[in-house]
Amino acid sequence: MRSHYLPRLEKKKTIDLRKKHIGPSCKIFFSHDPIKIVQAKGQYMYDEKGQRYLDCINNVAHVGHCHPDVVRAGAQQMEVLNTNSRFLHDNLVLYAQKLQATLPDKLSVCYFVNSGSEANDLALRLAWQYTGHKDIITLENAYHGHVSSLIDISPYKFHQLSDAEQNQYVHVAPSPDVYRGKYRADHPDPATAYADEVKDIIHRAHEKGGKIAAFIAESLQSCGGQVIPPVGYFQQVAEHVRKAGGIVIADEVQVGFGRVGANFWAFQLQGEDFVPDIVTMGKPIGNGHPMSCVVTTKEVAEAFTFSGMDYFNTFGGNPVSCAIGLAVLDVIGKEDLQGNALRVGRYLTDLLEKQKEKHPLVGDIRGRGLFVGMELVKDRLKLTPATAEAQEVIYKLKEQHILLSADGPHRNVLKFKPPMCFTTEDADLVVENIDHILTEIEEAIGLKLHNALKVENESSKRKVSVTLLPILNSFCSLQLTKANL
Amino acid sequence: MRSHYLPRLEKKKTIDLRKKHIGPSCKIFFSHDPIKIVQAKGQYMYDEKGQRYLDCINNVAHVGHCHPDVVRAGAQQMEVLNTNSRFLHDNLVLYAQKLQATLPDKLSVCYFVNSGSEANDLALRLAWQYTGHKDIITLENAYHGHVSSLIDISPYKFHQLSDAEQNQYVHVAPSPDVYRGKYRADHPDPATAYADEVKDIIHRAHEKGGKIAAFIAESLQSCGGQVIPPVGYFQQVAEHVRKAGGIVIADEVQVGFGRVGANFWAFQLQGEDFVPDIVTMGKPIGNGHPMSCVVTTKEVAEAFTFSGMDYFNTFGGNPVSCAIGLAVLDVIGKEDLQGNALRVGRYLTDLLEKQKEKHPLVGDIRGRGLFVGMELVKDRLKLTPATAEAQEVIYKLKEQHILLSADGPHRNVLKFKPPMCFTTEDADLVVENIDHILTEIEEAIGLKLHNALKVENESSKRKVSVTLLPILNSFCSLQLTKANL
Repeated sequence: MRSHYLPRLEKKKTIDLRKKHIGPSCKIFFSHDPIKIVQAKGQYMYDEKGQRYLDCINNVAHVGHCHPDVVRAGAQQMEVLNTNSRFLHDNLVLYAQKLQATLPDKLSVCYFVNSGSEANDLALRLAWQYTGHKDIITLENAYHGHVSSLIDISPYKFHQLSDAEQNQYVHVAPSPDVYRGKYRADHPDPATAYADEVKDIIHRAHEKGGKIAAFIAESLQSCGGQVIPPVGYFQQVAEHVRKAGGIVIADEVQVGFGRVGANFWAFQLQGEDFVPDIVTMGKPIGNGHPMSCVVTTKEVAEAFTFSGMDYFNTFGGNPVSCAIGLAVLDVIGKEDLQGNALRVGRYLTDLLEKQKEKHPLVGDIRGRGLFVGMELVKDRLKLTPATAEAQEVIYKLKEQHILLSADGPHRNVLKFKPPMCFTTEDADLVVENIDHILTEIEEAIGLKLHNALKVENESSKRKVSVTLLPILNSFCSLQLTKANL
Repeated sequence: MRSHYLPRLEKKKTIDLRKKHIGPSCKIFFSHDPIKIVQAKGQYMYDEKGQRYLDCINNVAHVGHCHPDVVRAGAQQMEVLNTNSRFLHDNLVLYAQKLQATLPDKLSVCYFVNSGSEANDLALRLAWQYTGHKDIITLENAYHGHVSSLIDISPYKFHQLSDAEQNQYVHVAPSPDVYRGKYRADHPDPATAYADEVKDIIHRAHEKGGKIAAFIAESLQSCGGQVIPPVGYFQQVAEHVRKAGGIVIADEVQVGFGRVGANFWAFQLQGEDFVPDIVTMGKPIGNGHPMSCVVTTKEVAEAFTFSGMDYFNTFGGNPVSCAIGLAVLDVIGKEDLQGNALRVGRYLTDLLEKQKEKHPLVGDIRGRGLFVGMELVKDRLKLTPATAEAQEVIYKLKEQHILLSADGPHRNVLKFKPPMCFTTEDADLVVENIDHILTEIEEAIGLKLHNALKVENESSKRKVSVTLLPILNSFCSLQLTKANL
């Protein structure tokens, strides 16, 4: 498939206009040589020359870029009516009903908003009002959105600030990361150990006169490094938090809607005995259309009315957004995308595990469904982050027309979260390329596995790029620690 | 025109599902007998029985409900590509360029976001970062959005709270309302008097060690009661605020995009010598599609990068939103909707002025273009708000299939902000109905103009509703003060 779309501007002109008129804080991928994308379909994107890219990162285009059912639902509703939720409309209530059916019964009341940020901000307001408390517990490296209240609870963001000053009501608990965190896979009970950290925070907050309104966490940390908390963690956290009069907010903005394969919602990976008080949604909910949702219990929703303040969101829950949301749910079901996420995710994870056996740079593979992280380290004992190497992989993949990104606090976790129509062939393609690139990097820097797991891959040897060393040398932080492998 | 749309649910079922699944804080119009709207076109909306309503309130459906050019632009782009702004795309830069062309040159840098709330929150972040200061000056009765940072600067909202506690960094200046405010039309220089109030606030903030980051105001207060500040007010405020190291944010979420007729932006009504440092946009920008924008100067934008924090908005500036935004600008130009707003707005205002001559309940008519307020009072000297009567007008108009709303701190200002394709015939229809209803109310309560301005309208007499008195009696606050007329 080749794009027949004719771009109106020369790429250079697009870049110049962007520099002139778009806020410089809005970063572009591959800033030295950005990609101009003009078309997309399924898991593929196309640049202005018709070059196809395999998209391994866009969890917003959840059911596939430009899915015809979603496009049709949106276009048809746009023609008929698009107005606010101060009038009765079937789309709003049918969508709320259908969305509710994916959740535990007690999560029954919806607030429709326009973005994950609006959803998380509203979740905080609900928590403050319901509990009458103010303090929020968040996780290390968490990212919950870009509005000011969420920067405050997003260490991923506020640590970027030169003059970061932590809000006194915000408490940061250790990320339940069993690879790099405080309690690791060798700990007898990391779930309890991490939950006890939250208990301690509550205790210390109480000592200072604080009162816990909420614990908020992504069900699986995404920007934080594709972290999968040990099973039982959230149950215990919820117990501690509720005992303190607080509630639990599960942020599913990145990981919801079947992506984790085994369940529709990522918090459900913890087991049926964990039900959050509030679930926030976003990115994939409208396959790119700006919409999102907060779902909570009847009790929390009723308490919110006691403030005396109405809640009105101009665009939230409009008939077009709801038509699109309904279509997304329909497609997930009709095309069994949750099942596909489970199957292809497992296939991808298995392929990546084999890369770990082969490549010393691969420290950890972790994933659920089509939410997978591959953490690169320069030293498997010290876990020295291979940040520059992760960037190198991303840039080299781009040359092979594959889009992947690196994230986590050290930007050394390759992060897979492709459209849910991703196939085993797509997985083969990206992993084969990663194999070549890791081989190149390891050869260039003389890094070898010291044990029998290493398997020479002759084909990859032939592809060593002559441009590799200069690029690697440009990362001044690059420190090799072969001795520890 | 009649709707051929067949609703799927009985109205009662829609209401029941809404009660079950939609947050009770999300209020509906005419809650005792809400309207189910299934279709809309131009300035008309249609219920499930095909009954047409004239829409005098929806400033979001700016170029007319379901405008075919806007629908087509959105549908076509949805089919081709909808992704985030981390890739180059022509729609983003062409739209930014076209939007910039409507603004003074120095307002040249755009941030695309999803709602007026996201826009105003980002404006605060820009102001805080640029100035290094924290304090915000806002206006009495102001409403700037629903996220937590904006509730703090929205007296219209935070005064609804039972336990309102004003943020120490927020200072509230008097609304520059020359009808009901501190300085009125009889004041020799209300612009200076109101601006001096801001100067005094700055002085008092400085005394307490505060530093002014920004003054934020709608260019014309909307929810605050359709308030039109005296010319010269913003120039003087800007001088005081900038002298204190702060900047000026003009909130055009409700009033921008040609609505005021004489200018494209409402702040331009103050004259060419007033240019804000930040302009925020929202509601009408996408004719109902969730999008919005913050435009600022190069200096403010550059300072924002110094924080070290990127700004990324998942949906903001996507190619579909930008295609829709471009189409809206095209339609405004092609159909001369700004000119229509000027002409029809003037016609409407003239009709309403005649109502003021005739009806003692009409205290004030004020407007610019298709942004018009009609303030009802029970006493023209004491300005006693005719709150119950304003509600009565709204409900009676609904029976005549005309949608209007009442707002302002006393909810006694009938607020006209219709789609910009509103016609003189529409104006005739709504004003004729208001005439009848006001006649009914005044007859029912025995209210008469005591001077020669009163003109009997025989036709309106014949329409006195037998249901009127019981409805009026249900408003316990109703106090009549005929003696002062």
